Parts: sequence; structure tokens; C-alpha cells
Amino acid sequence: MSVITLTTDFGLEDSYVAAMKGVILGINPQATIVDVTHAVPPQDIQAGAFALLGVAPYFPKGTVHVAVIDPGVGSERRAIALQAGGYFFIGPDNGVLTLAAQVHNLRRKLSLVRPSSAIKAIHLLNPEYWLSEVSSTFHGRDIFAPVAAHLTSGEPFDNFGVPIEDYAMLELKAPVERDDALIGEILYIDRFGNLISNILNRHIPEVREQARVEIAKACFRGIFQTYANAHVGDPLALIGSSGFLEIAVRNGSAARQLDAKIGDPVIITMPKT
Amino acid sequence: MSVITLTTDFGLEDSYVAAMKGVILGINPQATIVDVTHAVPPQDIQAGAFALLGVAPYFPKGTVHVAVIDPGVGSERRAIALQAGGYFFIGPDNGVLTLAAQVHNLRRKLSLVRPSSAIKAIHLLNPEYWLSEVSSTFHGRDIFAPVAAHLTSGEPFDNFGVPIEDYAMLELKAPVERDDALIGEILYIDRFGNLISNILNRHIPEVREQARVEIAKACFRGIFQTYANAHVGDPLALIGSSGFLEIAVRNGSAARQLDAKIGDPVIITMPKT
Amino acid sequence: MSVITLTTDFGLEDSYVAAMKGVILGINPQATIVDVTHAVPPQDIQAGAFALLGVAPYFPKGTVHVAVIDPGVGSERRAIALQAGGYFFIGPDNGVLTLAAQVHNLRRKLSLVRPSSAIKAIHLLNPEYWLSEVSSTFHGRDIFAPVAAHLTSGEPFDNFGVPIEDYAMLELKAPVERDDALIGEILYIDRFGNLISNILNRHIPEVREQARVEIAKACFRGIFQTYANAHVGDPLALIGSSGFLEIAVRNGSAARQLDAKIGDPVIITMPKT
Repeated sequence: MSVITLTTDFGLEDSYVAAMKGVILGINPQATIVDVTHAVPPQDIQAGAFALLGVAPYFPKGTVHVAVIDPGVGSERRAIALQAGGYFFIGPDNGVLTLAAQVHNLRRKLSLVRPSSAIKAIHLLNPEYWLSEVSSTFHGRDIFAPVAAHLTSGEPFDNFGVPIEDYAMLELKAPVERDDALIGEILYIDRFGNLISNILNRHIPEVREQARVEIAKACFRGIFQTYANAHVGDPLALIGSSGFLEIAVRNGSAARQLDAKIGDPVIITMPKT
Repeated sequence: MSVITLTTDFGLEDSYVAAMKGVILGINPQATIVDVTHAVPPQDIQAGAFALLGVAPYFPKGTVHVAVIDPGVGSERRAIALQAGGYFFIGPDNGVLTLAAQVHNLRRKLSLVRPSSAIKAIHLLNPEYWLSEVSSTFHGRDIFAPVAAHLTSGEPFDNFGVPIEDYAMLELKAPVERDDALIGEILYIDRFGNLISNILNRHIPEVREQARVEIAKACFRGIFQTYANAHVGDPLALIGSSGFLEIAVRNGSAARQLDAKIGDPVIITMPKT
Repeated sequence: MSVITLTTDFGLEDSYVAAMKGVILGINPQATIVDVTHAVPPQDIQAGAFALLGVAPYFPKGTVHVAVIDPGVGSERRAIALQAGGYFFIGPDNGVLTLAAQVHNLRRKLSLVRPSSAIKAIHLLNPEYWLSEVSSTFHGRDIFAPVAAHLTSGEPFDNFGVPIEDYAMLELKAPVERDDALIGEILYIDRFGNLISNILNRHIPEVREQARVEIAKACFRGIFQTYANAHVGDPLALIGSSGFLEIAVRNGSAARQLDAKIGDPVIITMPKT
């Protein structure tokens, strides 16, 4: 069992992703390689971290998650590997790995933050596991891919470098409470135009059908289970498949219909009881 | 041998497809997963069914074809599996699976409609084969992917649910004959701008070089074997690689050049003999 | 070990690529299939050849590289296979395979041209290795995919056809020297807007920090190791990950910022010493 996932901002037009796969298969022909996405907006570390957060826990334990959103390649930024929750994470030391490593993600119950003592980190310094020639611009191919391949081939984690504790952390911005309202924001907009917020299931009180939801210029009532709770064309709020509160329009695009964008506030107000 | 194909409208920007793959590999690490396409227009059941129809018969027998174009997810629509012609089909009960299951597709000789008695259908009701927690919005990950993985792991088809016969059917609209003309329509436009119609090889009489073809504002003669039968830049009709009559422009885009779109009529008139 | 790579202009919207994969897995269930890219601009042989050139040497020896950019399909153009440098190349005889087969690419040290005697070529003529029914429009599925699958299954190269020597060659246009200047051109623009030229490492004299670089309307000094040698937003020249001189803008798009396009000249002038 040796699964390697790839999350990058390389796109699929060029052949950068394929070069990484060639390197991996040259080292571990048994590796199963899965693309998470290569459409992360160029150099958007937060978006890459978020993409990985949503899927990492659905892979079998032992999976090596490689993320290459790497604006600092060739500078002094370190190459690192993390071990957390039974998974490995490999990439640049800019935070892109840390949402997935940090949040103790029990699939849809995104709720626990892992104590940092439960994350083991190393600075990748052992060139024995890299390509013999390392470019200054493509560590995905020359360092991260071969390290992932050697790791799935059974090399012990500690052999790849030197323990560190001061790796860069990215934090999920938590929603804030103000008076009766919970104020979050839109983190991500998916292909269907669903607006995914930073509000988690556990942030929201139990009585949900009367909750008042404000987003962009729209305002409506209720947090529901599924799209079918709204009429076609109407907006609704629900706990989405990643465990975050989402705003959707049934059989439509909430982003377009509500003219909403990343960073827009989402305000949940519970009725006075 | 355990091949699983995926046809969805999820796109490749988000990580929904990867979540399905993670679930599959967690259950059956030996599965070989192939993307058919994830660029089906959102919630376009007909387009998804058509994409699958064209490729299903090129896969080895035993392949499990999963299609998730699922506007009704979370409503009362059923999750189903079909067994037909040596293949398995898994997805929502909205017709997306039925073109491929129904048409006895001998590769390019699309011609026989399978008797419905030759299709075995079950309503997926056994939660033993699902993820332990099922969301209301992403059955692709929580039900269809794990069922496909368990099926390729050797679980008997009948164990997954309860036999049904009243599943939703999608039919390929047949072309109609009127006087001397055969009137079909454009079903699909591919990346090259080729216009793929619902007219099959068997619908067209033998003498083809004199056939008159009308599409959008264009009119030209002949149904040929290959693009090379036309001059560069000229439109021509031919039996395409999926077995349907296509309108193409050699080294160009028929859709753009003829200003044609899905649903446009294609009229074939044979010369009086 | 049986890796097959696919480079096409089929896009990922349609299911043409999946049909090729189904055919391959039906013949060799053990094949590992890797997409190089399917976003080659329709019928752009040069772009396809260039995409393959950059990644072919990163795959393990024995890999079969299939490239289908095939405007002449169905005409008299031949289907061919090449054996060179431990790799196999399969596709139409229009040059798309020959950059990768011809250039003795030692990864980033793109420098040697392979003597043509070191390339073994055959005309694919043995229908025993094709699908039983061959369309006139999709040889990727009906000829190239099954040949690749049989080759990775251990069939000897010579069995697939008849030796030839007059296959079509594509050449990398070399930069020219004029007075003190080296004049190359932009071959390719990647997703990040990096401008990749036809100037190789070995073309450039040793003293690089004082080199004067002209591209489109911009002019600046220095050829460096990595993006971090420039300030954010500034253009710089460097030897990119494929071994070619690239013009980049740190954390930006050189193509957009310099308003440059494919074919634009790149002029390197060394200071008088």
C-alpha cells in the first residue's frame, strides 16, 4: 500500500505534474499516485492548504500527501516533511501542509486541533533521497517527488532530514461571536458556485431552522441538511460535505446569484428564545 | 483486475474527485481508477450519460462505471447499481447510467438495444458498504465510491441492496424519417468543434457519396470515411469514432465555422435513384 | 514495470482519453498510465513534441510514450514507433515523437543530439496488435493504445511492423549568433507566464551576471539561478527546470507583464571584456 497524493498550482496544460510522476515511478514502481488538484491559483498557499484539508482524511493511513505551492522555491525557505495522524505531508515550509496536519480531522467532524506535540516535523536535508541534480526552480520534481517515493518504499521518516519545531503554521481563521451573531467568512467557492465558509458544525447552536443567514446582499432563514430543503433557485445554508457551513442555491450557483466572493462575511443570527 | 471509472460534473478545480479516489483506495488498494471526464456541465444528466456511453465498451469486462451527475442528492432519489453486458454501473437513479447499460454497444456498431430483462438493477440499501457517516450532499464519496470499491473487491452484486425494475430510463432520441429525408439532431460538440449527431451508421442508406447534408446554414454533399476526404477548411460528414454521424471541418472547428449548437437539426437527403 | 504516458490534444472535456485507457487496461491490466498533458493546442505538433521532450527522461527506462497530435489521421500518414535511449515512442509519423527521441536529453543537460543511427524506427503495420475494428478518425484508441499495451506486455518491438528510416523529423530551431548577440526565440509559455526559449545552458557564456537580456519591450541584466534573485514583480532570466533559458517575473507573469508571445525574439548580449 503506497499512495501518494499531489496538490499543486501547476495546472494541467504544462507537463510539470507528469515530471513528478515519472520521478516517483522510477523510484517506486508500485506507487499509486492520485491528483488532489493542480488548479490551485498560482502561489495561493491558503487555497492549496484548504484543498488538502478537505480530502486528506479520506485516504488510507500511510498515504503521503505532497503539496507544491511554492512561491519561495530557490530561496532560503526550507523543504519539510510532517508526520501526523498516520499520514505524511511533504512540501515547502510555508504553511501549505499545516492545515491538514494540524486539524485532527475526523472526516466531516472537523473539530479537534491536534496538539503540536503530535506533529513530528523534519527539515529535508538528506540529498541521498533527491534527484542527483536539483534545479533552483522545481523542487516538486527534484526533491519532494523523490522523497515521497522513497518514503512509500519503506525508508524510515527520520532518515530524510533533521527534526525541527519551528515550521511555518497556517491557521484557519475562526469565526467570531458578536452579540447574538456568529460572523464567519467565505473561504472557498467551488465549481458549482457553492460558498464554503469557515464556520464549522460545532460553532452553530442546535436550533437551526430559525437561524437567520446573511451573505452578500441576501438574507434567508434556516440551516438545513441538504439541497432538497430549498426550492429550485432559492439559496440555503447547510453543513457541506467537508464539515463547513456552505451557502448553496439549489440547482444553481450561489456565487453568481448572490454576487458573493471569497472573504465576504457570513452572519448567522439565532432567534431570541 | 479491478477497474473503476469515474464520470462526474465535479470539475478538477476542487478536490471532490480526489476524495472519492481516497475512499476507493482505502477499501481496495488494488483498484485501478480511470477518469472518464469530470467536465460534464453541472447537473447535465444527458451529457454525462452520453460521455459514458461512448467509452464504457472499451473497458475490460468487469469494470465498474461510476457516474455522479446528481442534482437530486439528499432528496428521495434512489442510489442504484446496474449489471449489464458484463459491466457494472453505479450512481443516482436519474437515468445517467442507463444509456450505457441499455444500448448493446458493440463498440463502433452502436445498434442493438438490450432487452430490459438483460439489465439487473438493485436499489443500494445496505449501509454496511457505505462510509460510516453519510453526508446529505456528497453520495459520490460516501455511497457510490465505497460500493464500487467493495464490488471490485469481490462482494457479490446482490449483497448491496434490493432488486428493482422501475429505475429511471434515459433514451437516445432516434432520428425521424420524413419524405426522403432523415432528420436527426446534434447531441454533443467535442473539443475540436466536431458536431456529433444522434444518427447511427445503420440509419443511413448504403449510397453515401451523393447524400445531401444540411446543418445550421450549411449544405454539402457526401458522407465519408475520414477527415482527409475534405479539403482543409471544408465541412464534411462522416461516421465518427463513437459510431455516430459527425459533422467536422478538416483541421478546423465545425461548431464555430457553421455556427452550430446542441439541438440543431441535421438533415440527410438521399438522391432520387 | 510497465509505464505508458499519454500526450494528446484531446482535452479532458470529452472522453477520448478514457477510451484509450480502457483499451490499454483491457490488454495489459498491469499498465500504469500517466497523463503528460491533453491540453496541447488542437493539432499543434510542435507544442506536443515540446511537452514530451521536457518530461520523457524523467520516466523509468522502458516507459512507452504515446503522443497523439494527429491532424493527418485517416490520410496516408503512417503510424510509427521509435526506440531510442531506452524508451519507446508511439504515434503518427508527423514529427511529434522526434524531439524527445532525437535529443539525448540528460535531464536538465539538454545538449546532445542523438545520432540517427541510435534511433530504431518501425512503421506499424501488424494489425494483430490493433483493435479488431479500426476507425478512420481515432487511431489513438484503435492503433496506438493497443500497440503500447502489447509492447508493455512484452511483445518484441520488431513484431509490430516494418523497419523504416525516412520518418518525419522535427528539429529544435537553434538560436543564432550575430555580432556579440545570441538571438533565440520564445518556444513556449507555461501556466505561470514563464517564457521558455530555445536557448540552452550550453549556448550561454560563463559570465552571466552582466549579460543583457532583451525580450519584447523589456531589457534587463543578468542570468541567474532562481526566481529569488529578482525582486518581487521584476523580470529575470534563468535556466529553467527543463534546461532552457526562461524569462520569469518573480511571483508574477512575465507573459502578461512584458506582453510577450510565442515566437518573440530573445536577445542575449554579453558585455565586452
